[in-house]
Amino acid sequence: MSSRFTAPVVLPCDPACSVVRDGVVDVDDDGRIGYCGPAEAAPMSAAPVTALSGILLPGLVNAHAHSPMTLLRGMGGDLPLLRWLNEIIWPAEAKLRAEDVHAGMVLGSLEMLSHGVTTSAEMYFHPEEMAEAVLTTGARVVLGGPIMDLPGLDWRAMITATGRWIDADGLRFGPGERIELSFAAHSAYMLPPEALRLTAEAAAARGALVQIHVAEAADEDQKQRVEFGSVPRLLDEVGLLDGRVLAAHAVHLSDEDIALFAARGVGVAHCPGSNGKLASGIARLADLRAAAIAVGLGTDGPASNDDLDLWEELQLAAMLARLSTKDSTALDAPAALLLATRGGAAALGRDDIGALEAGRWADMVHIETDGFAFATGLAVPDAQLLSNLVWAAGSRRVRDVWVAGEQVLADGESTRTDRRKAAEAAKESAARLR
Amino acid sequence: MSSRFTAPVVLPCDPACSVVRDGVVDVDDDGRIGYCGPAEAAPMSAAPVTALSGILLPGLVNAHAHSPMTLLRGMGGDLPLLRWLNEIIWPAEAKLRAEDVHAGMVLGSLEMLSHGVTTSAEMYFHPEEMAEAVLTTGARVVLGGPIMDLPGLDWRAMITATGRWIDADGLRFGPGERIELSFAAHSAYMLPPEALRLTAEAAAARGALVQIHVAEAADEDQKQRVEFGSVPRLLDEVGLLDGRVLAAHAVHLSDEDIALFAARGVGVAHCPGSNGKLASGIARLADLRAAAIAVGLGTDGPASNDDLDLWEELQLAAMLARLSTKDSTALDAPAALLLATRGGAAALGRDDIGALEAGRWADMVHIETDGFAFATGLAVPDAQLLSNLVWAAGSRRVRDVWVAGEQVLADGESTRTDRRKAAEAAKESAARLR
Repeated sequence: MSSRFTAPVVLPCDPACSVVRDGVVDVDDDGRIGYCGPAEAAPMSAAPVTALSGILLPGLVNAHAHSPMTLLRGMGGDLPLLRWLNEIIWPAEAKLRAEDVHAGMVLGSLEMLSHGVTTSAEMYFHPEEMAEAVLTTGARVVLGGPIMDLPGLDWRAMITATGRWIDADGLRFGPGERIELSFAAHSAYMLPPEALRLTAEAAAARGALVQIHVAEAADEDQKQRVEFGSVPRLLDEVGLLDGRVLAAHAVHLSDEDIALFAARGVGVAHCPGSNGKLASGIARLADLRAAAIAVGLGTDGPASNDDLDLWEELQLAAMLARLSTKDSTALDAPAALLLATRGGAAALGRDDIGALEAGRWADMVHIETDGFAFATGLAVPDAQLLSNLVWAAGSRRVRDVWVAGEQVLADGESTRTDRRKAAEAAKESAARLR
Repeated sequence: MSSRFTAPVVLPCDPACSVVRDGVVDVDDDGRIGYCGPAEAAPMSAAPVTALSGILLPGLVNAHAHSPMTLLRGMGGDLPLLRWLNEIIWPAEAKLRAEDVHAGMVLGSLEMLSHGVTTSAEMYFHPEEMAEAVLTTGARVVLGGPIMDLPGLDWRAMITATGRWIDADGLRFGPGERIELSFAAHSAYMLPPEALRLTAEAAAARGALVQIHVAEAADEDQKQRVEFGSVPRLLDEVGLLDGRVLAAHAVHLSDEDIALFAARGVGVAHCPGSNGKLASGIARLADLRAAAIAVGLGTDGPASNDDLDLWEELQLAAMLARLSTKDSTALDAPAALLLATRGGAAALGRDDIGALEAGRWADMVHIETDGFAFATGLAVPDAQLLSNLVWAAGSRRVRDVWVAGEQVLADGESTRTDRRKAAEAAKESAARLR
C-alpha cells in the first residue's frame, strides 16, 4: 500500500545535501520512493499520511562491519592488538556455532536499526545464519562469508559456496531485496594471489561485489608490498579491481594506490573509530575524496569500536580529516552526513539506497528533535541545522525507521523482534565463548 | 538524612579503577560519602536503602566548558575558525544579556546532568547568573567571569569583582558547597602580563583557582613566545603558576613547558573534541601523564564540540592518544574513565569530588545496563565491563544522578527543572542572538 510521510525537515541526501522544509516523501506499494521534495510541489495523493514531527532522512549505510561480534564486545579489554587477537578473539571465534552467529547478528542488527543504520556490509562466518538474522529484524545487508586461508577454513570451498548461493537465490533477494550476496575475500595477507584471482572471476561472472580489507595496519602486508609494489597493485594484477570492489580501511595508501583506486572505481569503507581504537592510523580521507573515490563509513566489528553507532564515525571522520590536514573546513557536517548515506551506498556500488530519491528503496529514519541538540529550534539556517544533527544529535533521538517502506523501528523499539529476548540469546552465546 | 545505595557494580574510581561487585555506598546527612565498598564489609546501618540495578560511579567532572554557549550551538555551521568567530560568535555574544546567560547555563547544566556530568569548570560572562542557574538545576560548578582585554571589557574590574565576591560569599558556598568561585583569566594573548600578575596575586591571596586557556592553537601566542620563550614560562614569570592553576587545552607544549607544568603542579583540561573539530591539534596526553601532571577532560563550549557529553571525550582522548603514539595501549578504558572523574577533580585542585570515597561529596551517577552495550551481561571480567562502559555505553543509559547526596536526575529527567521550559527559554534567547 502506498503511503505519504510529512516532516518539518526532510534531508534527501542529494549531492548538495539540500534541506527541504515542510517536506513530503511518497512511498509506493513496492516500498520504493515515488516522490521526495517540498510539500508545495508534491503530486496529488490519496495515500494515508504519517505526519512526523522531526527530521526525516535516509537510513545510514554502515559500509564495513562484522556485526555478530556483538558477542565479543569488550572481551580482553584493551589488550595490545596481537595479544587480543591471539589470546581472546580467535580462540573465542573458534568456538562459534551457527546459532551463536545468528544471536550476535540479530543483536547487532537491532542495535544498528536503533541508531538509524538500515544497511550494513558484513563479512563473517555462517553467512546463511546472518541472512536469516537480518530477515528477522527487517534490516538490509550486503554480506559474505569470509574467504580466508587459515587452518580449518577452505577458501576454495567458500568461493564455490558463495557462487552457488548466488546462482540459486540471485544476487539480491528477500522482501524489498533486503539481502545482497557478495564475495568477502579477507585480505591479500590472508590469501594467496590465486585465491584473489578466483574470487575476482567468480564475482565478475555474477556482477557481485567483492569486499576486502586493504592496508589497515602499516605492516600487515609487507610481504605483498615487497613482491607486488603495493596491495592495490596486486589486487589489480589479479583482476580484482575490474569489477565491483569495496576496500575496507584503506589507511596506508600511496598516491599511486589512490590514483589506481580512482581509475578502477574502487569504493572505500573508511573506519575511523576502529582505526583509532587500534592505533592503525588515519586514512587519507581528504585525498580519497579529492580523487573522486566513492567513500562510505564503517564501524568495523563491535569488538574493536565497540558499538555499531555510525553517527560516531561521522564526527570522527570529520575530526581526523581536520587534524590530519590542519584544516577545520576539511570535512563539514553536510559532507560527513553524505559519507554515511549516499557515499556508503556508492562505495557499495548501489544506487538504490542511501538517499531519498524517486526509485530508491524507502529506507528512512525519523529523528525526534525534542532533545538538547535542537533546543534552539528548527527555525535556524540550514548550516546550523545540519551542524546540530551531525555534531550534537547523532543517534540520540532516532525514533522510527523504515526499510523498503516497512516500519521496523517504532518509538525506538523494534516492531519485529523483542530486544530483551535477543539480548538474552546473545548473552547465552557469549557466555559459552569466554 | 543518611542513606544507603546498593548496586551490582560500584566503580569508586580509586587510583586502581577497582570494580566492586555487590557494592554499597553510604551517604551521610551532610551529603558526603561515609562508606564505599563491598556489601560484605559495609558497616551496620539503619538508613533507608536504594537498591540500584546498574552501575554506580562518581559524577563526571567536565574540566573546561563555556556551557551557556548552548544558545549558539551550531551557529555558523562549519565556517573556518576566524570567520566563525568574527562573523558569528563574537557579534552574537555582544548581544548577550544576563537572562540569556541564565537560560543558556540552565540548559547546559541540564544537558550535563543528563549525561552524568555533575561538575563543570566554567568561564563565561555574567558569572552571577551562571551561579544562579547551577543552583537551580542542582549541579556543581567552578566558575569565573572572563578576565579579558577587549573593548567594552575591563579586566581590572573583573579581577576586583571576583575578589570581592569571594570575600563576601567565600570560595565555596551554596548547599553542598555547589558553587566554587575562581579567577578566569582568558589567556596570555588576550591579556597583558600585568593583568596575569594581578590575577595571580588576587587568586593566591584567596586560595582560588585560576582558569586560563594555554596553547590551544599553534599560532595564537606567537608574540608571547617571541618575548618570553613560551606561554608557560610567561605565566611562571608573573607568578601565576605558584597557586592553583587549570590550563585549558595545552595542545602545543614543548618538553620544557611540560616539565614546568609538572614542577609547578599545574592541572590540565584536555579537550580533544574541540581541538579536533577546530583542527587545533592533538595534545600530548601520554607525555602529560608520564610527567604526572593532573589531567582532566573538557568539552569546551557547545559551540565548538557541539555537545556537553563528556563520555565522547573519553573515547576521543583514548583514540587520539593511541593514534599520535601509534600504540593501541596508550590509554585504556580504566585510564580514560579516571581522567573524566578523579583526574578532572585533581586538575581542578579538588579532593572532595571525582571519586566515591569516604569524606568526598556524594556526587554519583547510576547507569542502567539494559542497553546494547551490556547485552552480554555484567558477569564478565572487570576489564570487559570497563570496556563496555567506556567504549560502548557512555551516556546512553544515564538514569539517575545525585549531587551532594541529593537526587537531581531521576529516570533521565531533572527532579528540579522542567527541561522543555528550559529549552523554550533558551530558544527565545537564541533567536534574539542570531
